[in-house]
Amino acid sequence: MKFGGTSMAGTERIRRVANIVRAQAAENSEGVSSEVAVVVSAMAGETDRLINFCREANAIYDPAEYDVVVASGEQVTSGLLSLTLQSLGCKARSWLGWQMPMKTIGAHSKARIETIDAPEMVASIEAGEVAVVPGFQGLSLEGRIATLGRGGSDTSAVAVAAAVGADRCDIYTDVDGVYTTDPRIVAKARKLKAVTYEEMLELASVGAKVLQTRSVGLAMKEGVRLQVLSSFVGDDAVSADELPGTMIVSDEEMDELVEKGLMERQLVTGIAHDKNEAKIILTRVPDKPGAVAHIFEPLADASINVDMIIQNVGRDKGETDVTFTVPQADLARAQAMLEDKADLIGFNRIITDSHIAKISVVGVGMKSHAGVASTMFRALSDRGINIQAISTSEIKVSVLIDEDETELAVRVLHTAYGLDAVD
Amino acid sequence: MKFGGTSMAGTERIRRVANIVRAQAAENSEGVSSEVAVVVSAMAGETDRLINFCREANAIYDPAEYDVVVASGEQVTSGLLSLTLQSLGCKARSWLGWQMPMKTIGAHSKARIETIDAPEMVASIEAGEVAVVPGFQGLSLEGRIATLGRGGSDTSAVAVAAAVGADRCDIYTDVDGVYTTDPRIVAKARKLKAVTYEEMLELASVGAKVLQTRSVGLAMKEGVRLQVLSSFVGDDAVSADELPGTMIVSDEEMDELVEKGLMERQLVTGIAHDKNEAKIILTRVPDKPGAVAHIFEPLADASINVDMIIQNVGRDKGETDVTFTVPQADLARAQAMLEDKADLIGFNRIITDSHIAKISVVGVGMKSHAGVASTMFRALSDRGINIQAISTSEIKVSVLIDEDETELAVRVLHTAYGLDAVD
Repeated sequence: MKFGGTSMAGTERIRRVANIVRAQAAENSEGVSSEVAVVVSAMAGETDRLINFCREANAIYDPAEYDVVVASGEQVTSGLLSLTLQSLGCKARSWLGWQMPMKTIGAHSKARIETIDAPEMVASIEAGEVAVVPGFQGLSLEGRIATLGRGGSDTSAVAVAAAVGADRCDIYTDVDGVYTTDPRIVAKARKLKAVTYEEMLELASVGAKVLQTRSVGLAMKEGVRLQVLSSFVGDDAVSADELPGTMIVSDEEMDELVEKGLMERQLVTGIAHDKNEAKIILTRVPDKPGAVAHIFEPLADASINVDMIIQNVGRDKGETDVTFTVPQADLARAQAMLEDKADLIGFNRIITDSHIAKISVVGVGMKSHAGVASTMFRALSDRGINIQAISTSEIKVSVLIDEDETELAVRVLHTAYGLDAVD
Repeated sequence: MKFGGTSMAGTERIRRVANIVRAQAAENSEGVSSEVAVVVSAMAGETDRLINFCREANAIYDPAEYDVVVASGEQVTSGLLSLTLQSLGCKARSWLGWQMPMKTIGAHSKARIETIDAPEMVASIEAGEVAVVPGFQGLSLEGRIATLGRGGSDTSAVAVAAAVGADRCDIYTDVDGVYTTDPRIVAKARKLKAVTYEEMLELASVGAKVLQTRSVGLAMKEGVRLQVLSSFVGDDAVSADELPGTMIVSDEEMDELVEKGLMERQLVTGIAHDKNEAKIILTRVPDKPGAVAHIFEPLADASINVDMIIQNVGRDKGETDVTFTVPQADLARAQAMLEDKADLIGFNRIITDSHIAKISVVGVGMKSHAGVASTMFRALSDRGINIQAISTSEIKVSVLIDEDETELAVRVLHTAYGLDAVD
């Protein structure tokens, strides 16, 4: 079970979480009790407070000491949840990253989990004690605290689930599952009983911020059955068995669910939108071998993630316009870098636009069906929405449109693919 | 070097501390640079905030999880001081209790330091890196975080100083040294250049809250030269060599200082007061063997510290009044416990009084001189101050008086022993 910062914000909310954990650990109606490990985030706002301290202390901070400071937030909530569980008569103890130990590799503040070999913790869980694990933190090769980067607690949870051979990894969030699209935009959005890892990866990477992308990838690799569900479900804490959210499963398990009639096979599973990209157009780039490499190599070296790329052959022979998108946060840096290389690349003008949105339709069903993309283009064009760029993967079609048309496009597509809930 | 919570309260104050540390680590006027380890407390108020969380989580908290929560305060400041030192161009890194490791024994939340075997930390210090150590925390035998109890950071500092074989352990506080008495009461109080461990122990135990008693005891045992000095010394950070506070030294070193004319040998070194005691009188206790044991055994079992004890043979034969003092915080508990045992002890009435103060004169000089006590009694009686009880040790005479007369008594005695500063 994993609980995020909003669920852990203050001792009252922690008591709520403790009730949910106790309900899960207790015997269910069939007389089966669960062995439980819980991964917790810091109290909402605490990590930002600690990061601010670090910035005030040293603008160019040493990530190893930054890790010492920020990892304390999860240490506090893991102790407090253990204490609260004990007050409810539920045996519990905390296992800090260095105690377990959760061994990590890679740079401080963006470490990656390498191995969890925690026989003591497993024995404690088997003896009926709830293991409470601070998310986001592990132990470096040098024996120091290493954090996994923002949102790393989801990944901690999946890694712990894999290490203890858990039946399921339940991620409790402030939404109660994965929806066909953002319910704030489309009132008729439906909660999905299940999505596949690949679908969730595509949805996570295009702005459906339910799970951290890395955690989904790890779950897929390790075969951990993930479930997304809400920790805000009224006053009576119930176990996940009684109030399920959305399961994230393998293709095979999805096939079984469809065969059993528990899921309907859809062409499109969900529709995501992302307003955090920015578009860059370089005009009149020489259309010769190597020109494009001059553009994208320096961006890659600077770890700027380029997403959609389109090359339009220009009106003038031997020249072309190159359009691509980067995260809005990196736009200024990318632009400066490109202007720096203007002579090498040989473009005429650089045009940028942050006022764009990426709309994506995602579904494993489209692997075996043509026509998904053309339905999208037709539906958008029928409502006069102009498509600025297109990119596709095996289970996703994305288009770039004017940001003002985001909500309209999402609603139009939700209806076009037959996703609207029936009253 | 050890800095308390007031000195560490916020990133601005931590920058001040970092400047003091850097000045100490840098070359002095003789071209000698110091190898430095720094022990830090949590930001003022932070430990109380964390303790409150624990109480809210579980009124009868598990001290092992309590330790996980409260130790985070020092973890944060050790990381922040390291970052700040680095920003000033001073190499530094944090060494958490479990990393060093500082091995402890005894119960969680009041553990005692057993050994510090930290070759890596020593190597790092010798390589010119400032070691920043969170106070108050160590590692238990079971490999968990163990805290030393409130004020434990002073003890951490002395233990680290002993472990690394430091020339000196400088305790930076919000006062600039040890005074002949509380300067808020006596304007003519003088800062002492040096006191002996024994004197400091007596002064610490009777209310001069400059150093934690346990840390002085450990320093005496390990032969660590302690210095008390202020971290608030104007804007220019200077090293302790340039602005000394009060040294706490052995009897032998004190003799040397006197021989060299650096210190004057005084009969009385300082005068302390303590308003945190309460008096209990049990009237008409049977004057027979074992009666007193019935009173004090249960108090000792409950860890209630009984200080002064007087037995007055009563007016009636075979009966006696027993007077003693306990910490005010334990008064209610002690009273309830005694009333519970009323039949066994066989007293007539229980009379309590919190409105008392203990005044102590302390000095190694009195070992070899009679008349110190009589000077005290004479001086107090000349001003009409009634003495309710007396207790003595080899280097201390304490009396119990009415709390309202505290300041008067301290001033009278400060003058009587010739301690007033000469303008």
